[in-house]
Amino acid sequence: MAQHHQQQQQQLVDGWPPHETLSHLPPLVSLVRDFAANNATSPMVVVTSGGTTVPLERNCVRYIDNFSTGTRGAASAEEFLSLGYAVIFVHRKTSIPAFARGLSISRVLASLSLSPTNDVQLDASTSQTDKDALLDALRRRESHESLAHKLLAVPFTTLFEYLVLLQSIADVVKPLGNRAMFYLAAAVSDYYVPWDDMPEHKIQSGGGQGPGLTLSLKPVPKMLGVLTKEWAPDAFIVSFKLETDETILIAKAAKSIRSYGVHMVVANQLDTRDKKVALVEPDGAAVEGVRCTAIEVESGRVDAKLCASVAEKHVKFQS
Amino acid sequence: MAQHHQQQQQQLVDGWPPHETLSHLPPLVSLVRDFAANNATSPMVVVTSGGTTVPLERNCVRYIDNFSTGTRGAASAEEFLSLGYAVIFVHRKTSIPAFARGLSISRVLASLSLSPTNDVQLDASTSQTDKDALLDALRRRESHESLAHKLLAVPFTTLFEYLVLLQSIADVVKPLGNRAMFYLAAAVSDYYVPWDDMPEHKIQSGGGQGPGLTLSLKPVPKMLGVLTKEWAPDAFIVSFKLETDETILIAKAAKSIRSYGVHMVVANQLDTRDKKVALVEPDGAAVEGVRCTAIEVESGRVDAKLCASVAEKHVKFQS
Repeated sequence: MAQHHQQQQQQLVDGWPPHETLSHLPPLVSLVRDFAANNATSPMVVVTSGGTTVPLERNCVRYIDNFSTGTRGAASAEEFLSLGYAVIFVHRKTSIPAFARGLSISRVLASLSLSPTNDVQLDASTSQTDKDALLDALRRRESHESLAHKLLAVPFTTLFEYLVLLQSIADVVKPLGNRAMFYLAAAVSDYYVPWDDMPEHKIQSGGGQGPGLTLSLKPVPKMLGVLTKEWAPDAFIVSFKLETDETILIAKAAKSIRSYGVHMVVANQLDTRDKKVALVEPDGAAVEGVRCTAIEVESGRVDAKLCASVAEKHVKFQS
Repeated sequence: MAQHHQQQQQQLVDGWPPHETLSHLPPLVSLVRDFAANNATSPMVVVTSGGTTVPLERNCVRYIDNFSTGTRGAASAEEFLSLGYAVIFVHRKTSIPAFARGLSISRVLASLSLSPTNDVQLDASTSQTDKDALLDALRRRESHESLAHKLLAVPFTTLFEYLVLLQSIADVVKPLGNRAMFYLAAAVSDYYVPWDDMPEHKIQSGGGQGPGLTLSLKPVPKMLGVLTKEWAPDAFIVSFKLETDETILIAKAAKSIRSYGVHMVVANQLDTRDKKVALVEPDGAAVEGVRCTAIEVESGRVDAKLCASVAEKHVKFQS
């Protein structure tokens, strides 16, 4: 099965890494299979989150990464769970887990101290903001406790791992037809270095002298079209566009729909993505948006509104 | 002052980003200045930790990064504090903070639950390993509480920020002479893209078609020689070498000593760096090492042994 997938991937991407470097993935896919079987009656969403890395060396020390904390993906996983979905949360290993938006390891640890009974407690000196953020996250998780079996986290790091997982998971949820949704919030690399072009060891620096380094990256073939047409032809597919240049954002989103046949594009601009997003649909005229007030931004409401809108479209799509 | 530094940096690195992109740094340097004044009688160590990023766009979405979790740096900050040092912990913003080695946000949150009194507590279902890791970290921090004023964390993200901070901090600790140590555990980029060569906005992908992307990176001038000769001519300077290829490791470490005049190189190999490290000194014959038993590795003793050895050398250096 894993080999079968790898062969398909090899057709898609030149210079795929050898099988043994990806041998940790089939056990994850088995977990997804069990999860899908255990949640056979729910609507199902595959939320992808965080950035993929592109290794520059086989024994990887250096890599290209992209700015994505996974905040939107983590918040979405939580929101879709509230909306009744079974959620397969395919996330960058180091990105923010579900129920942890707004938290960081240093702030959480700074909020804790040892209790007299050798347990932990909130530190007396913790700021109200940090206290609230932590208690709120734990409260949200607790209120979803009865739904814990409806959330499965699947970690990735590299572009290669991400693509194998996406294809394999699509294969698992295929029988669900239009009851499945893909909510592709991960920031997938556009360029990569084929395995055959990578040096075995860390690229040597030449001690600050020398001619510098030229990296030749190949474009990653767009998987979106393959996902909509082959891997998940019946599912509802939502992709994301993030640009820093607002003037090209909507046009690029519309182009994604035309080129790849996705059902909806969530268009964000880097600086304002926690305040407003545009929802672009195949009927190009209908650019509907989610826009938050300052108070809603403060309480992280943008994803609640966004996911509710998307889930509504998914229901219509199924009818 | 900041401008003065920037001008010096401009001579060192071509295509330095404009002043306004680094205007958040002078306030951090002020904190360092206060910290140094408040700890005027202690030996002082500047521990650098984590990897520097190299932005590929001015409005940065993509960047080159390197594999460095900051575990060694965080552990070292803690150990040097125990050894009586005042510690300036210059760390990658997202890397592991001091007193948090072995912890991750997901494991810490999974260990916590709400207590009946609306406080936090260890979750009943937490594994003993996770429970011990969290309690142990809090215990270590608590046992150092009286030393809290001897630890200052200074965050960076990009190569540019790192270089400005290193130079500015060297300037602050210069009056301490040989009582200051630089323990350079950060993984600093060897190549970068000059500001003038960076596109303003996110590099467009060309939709999976097209010719790919060629990146031309310049070598980062080696700051080590400038640090030992100009920025901190009297300090004890310890640099790090990490290689994946063990056969070239010691030779490269010895070369760092000859080329840059550092006083000691900690040489690690990627796969074994939590078990053993070599300490390479100017007298090339003397390659002394730290090597841990399996039990010592388990309890993270490698950095305790390493820092103790280094501190001993620093004492000799001062006499």
